[in-house]
Amino acid sequence: MKPYMEMTKEELLALKKELSAQYKEFQTKDLRLDMSRGKPSTEQLDISMGMMDVLSGNVDLTCDDGTDCRNYGVLDGIKEAKELLADMMEVAPDYILIYGNSSLNVMYDTVSRSMTQGVMGSTPWCKLDKVKFLCPVPGYDRHFAITEYFGIEMISVPMTPDGPDMDMVEELVASDDSIKGIWCVPKYSNPQGISYSDETVRRFARLKPAAKDFRIYWDNAYTIHHLYDHDQDHLIEILAECKRAGNTDLVYKFASTSKVSFPGSGIAAIAASQNNLVDIKRQLKIQTIGHDKVNQLRHVRYFGDIHGMIEHMRKHADIIRPKFEAVINALEQELGELSIADWTNPKGGYFISFNSLNGCAKAIVTKCKKSGLIMTGAGATYPYGKDPNDCNIRIAPSYPTLSDLVLAMELFTLCVKLVSIDKILAEKKDKEQTKENA
Amino acid sequence: MKPYMEMTKEELLALKKELSAQYKEFQTKDLRLDMSRGKPSTEQLDISMGMMDVLSGNVDLTCDDGTDCRNYGVLDGIKEAKELLADMMEVAPDYILIYGNSSLNVMYDTVSRSMTQGVMGSTPWCKLDKVKFLCPVPGYDRHFAITEYFGIEMISVPMTPDGPDMDMVEELVASDDSIKGIWCVPKYSNPQGISYSDETVRRFARLKPAAKDFRIYWDNAYTIHHLYDHDQDHLIEILAECKRAGNTDLVYKFASTSKVSFPGSGIAAIAASQNNLVDIKRQLKIQTIGHDKVNQLRHVRYFGDIHGMIEHMRKHADIIRPKFEAVINALEQELGELSIADWTNPKGGYFISFNSLNGCAKAIVTKCKKSGLIMTGAGATYPYGKDPNDCNIRIAPSYPTLSDLVLAMELFTLCVKLVSIDKILAEKKDKEQTKENA
Repeated sequence: MKPYMEMTKEELLALKKELSAQYKEFQTKDLRLDMSRGKPSTEQLDISMGMMDVLSGNVDLTCDDGTDCRNYGVLDGIKEAKELLADMMEVAPDYILIYGNSSLNVMYDTVSRSMTQGVMGSTPWCKLDKVKFLCPVPGYDRHFAITEYFGIEMISVPMTPDGPDMDMVEELVASDDSIKGIWCVPKYSNPQGISYSDETVRRFARLKPAAKDFRIYWDNAYTIHHLYDHDQDHLIEILAECKRAGNTDLVYKFASTSKVSFPGSGIAAIAASQNNLVDIKRQLKIQTIGHDKVNQLRHVRYFGDIHGMIEHMRKHADIIRPKFEAVINALEQELGELSIADWTNPKGGYFISFNSLNGCAKAIVTKCKKSGLIMTGAGATYPYGKDPNDCNIRIAPSYPTLSDLVLAMELFTLCVKLVSIDKILAEKKDKEQTKENA
Repeated sequence: MKPYMEMTKEELLALKKELSAQYKEFQTKDLRLDMSRGKPSTEQLDISMGMMDVLSGNVDLTCDDGTDCRNYGVLDGIKEAKELLADMMEVAPDYILIYGNSSLNVMYDTVSRSMTQGVMGSTPWCKLDKVKFLCPVPGYDRHFAITEYFGIEMISVPMTPDGPDMDMVEELVASDDSIKGIWCVPKYSNPQGISYSDETVRRFARLKPAAKDFRIYWDNAYTIHHLYDHDQDHLIEILAECKRAGNTDLVYKFASTSKVSFPGSGIAAIAASQNNLVDIKRQLKIQTIGHDKVNQLRHVRYFGDIHGMIEHMRKHADIIRPKFEAVINALEQELGELSIADWTNPKGGYFISFNSLNGCAKAIVTKCKKSGLIMTGAGATYPYGKDPNDCNIRIAPSYPTLSDLVLAMELFTLCVKLVSIDKILAEKKDKEQTKENA
């Protein structure tokens, strides 16, 4: 098949007829497929069921230091959980604070605290005329939702294969003291699956922000979420790099076990410098007496240590890998030669980023939906839900079964083709009109 | 023994000598007793251990409506948990939103949200010059800590045996639109164990606040925490009463299972009108994808229904009741005739409120500490930690064993006597001086 752009109007119309027939057939199938969110599949949840057996009525729920996990107390998490999460987050246990079940909640609370209290003694952001965040795009919709909710102005920064455009980031943070943060998913990024290059991380650690309350919001959600045993991305540890650069307090690092154990029933954590942790704990002790220590202990007893966790992640990879490969294969096979789209091919994480021709993403997602396939809303990967080129679609392969996924990708690529043909035909028509008018 | 006030200087000095000897003996015992917080005892935690057995690797973690509790989703809590907590909170399940492990956290979030977003469309409190809360005193230190943390001015309102002084509450909220809330522990109050009278609740529901974003923060922490099977306080349900009074949106009601199952590993909830819930959920969906549904299911499967919960609370009562009685007995026996103190005698909750002679509370708590008994800090029951009369001490009988408690009360009453004698002697001296000078 030759690129659509090189086809004549007649060829395209013939192709459209053929593809439309296929699409109509899909519509009779009453499909209900959901690829909208990065949700683990049932099969993945099943591999963690042993977690329900490690604690029982006969098991002592006491920590090594004598803490009874069943009672009040221990604001920053039990020692054993700090050690486990510290290994997962590649920092020392002293730099960790264990939270509840959701790292999104930790991030929300971090922004909320900055709004009403400021950061390490700075003016509370709610007292400022303007607060801005940098948002590498495409990015994670729930990040953008937090900053939008708090009335924080979002400035898009384009992603490159090495991470955010660092020239732009450096210039912006150095010149504008109303810029207080940047959202990052530095490893297997949402939605591209890109991992920041060594150079990018080093430049992040060496930022010279005009605002002393500027922080990097380093959401390392996919730190151990590899697809392959050996072909893994490696990310320079940001806290250590900031320390080396003399920028100790520059970063908040977030993670959770949501996609390790059970989403919604895992444990989340923040890692940061001592100065930041003191500032956070001053607030946290007002907010709560402590998080769920029994669940912390459950995780510790189940995984044992980071090695147990890594072995567990292999089982997840074994389930997810074929799904990523099925998506990539379908895209290559169906669209590879057509020059109407490109996509990423990640080695980990939960997403593939897909770019259609400009102005086609919304129409593709709508067309999918009309045949029973729910994709992440077009535009969701941009601040305010507005993709200026209307081309980016996030593909989340994890939740459907493999056979459903194959079917879904058949439908998806079909919709991409149909919408692209319409777009090219419309352009051709425009050109003809322009010629006629000339 | 006659009242201390009626004793001569010589009698008091002789008594002081005798009691000081007893105190010195205590100091040699190297005691380490903690009565500072309302913590369940180990014996109480043991009765909930069955909770660790209801879920296992072989148990289906699916809700009746098909929700897989192990995956993301369900912002407001699983249906079964809503039903259980609704029965506990005496409202319909539709008026409930299930949160994480801590009702304190829910209250903090509620105030925090009002600071940055306002209440149902009102001006965010952080944009106002002045925000005030009414604080019935003595009251709960962690409530006061939240309002102090957010820079909210606290106005003390005296408690009566029927609840807060409602004449004062009505007048203040009607006349000052910067008053945005009032902290209430309406049943078995912290620290007095007072339950608001029917009249008080009715007047609360009929408040006419000047501020349309005024809310009653109704922390019903001890709703089913009775000491006795039959001799129980009854509280009019505030949401229904507000509805009857045409004041549907006036109240946020908070509760948790912290002192039902495991503190820190329970589930918390808010109950409020539909308008309020819509306002809260609009924010909550930005903050989190959902709370821990597995733990919600664990509670539902363990308690079954409200009857199971009530039966469970009987077991707690059987452990706590003798402790409350031991405290009351010690107070009556040691201080009953001395006219140097009074105290409450609650039928539920976790605390007894003790009033010494004015100006003695701090000295008593310090004297206890020097012999190894930690009481709640004097002043803690007042906003900003400042008890204007320095007389109130919160007694928390639940955590120590019964034998430790008997010992602790021996020491406590001894300290009360010694500090009171010093106070009376000092007053006598002042009077003599005044006479001499005259």
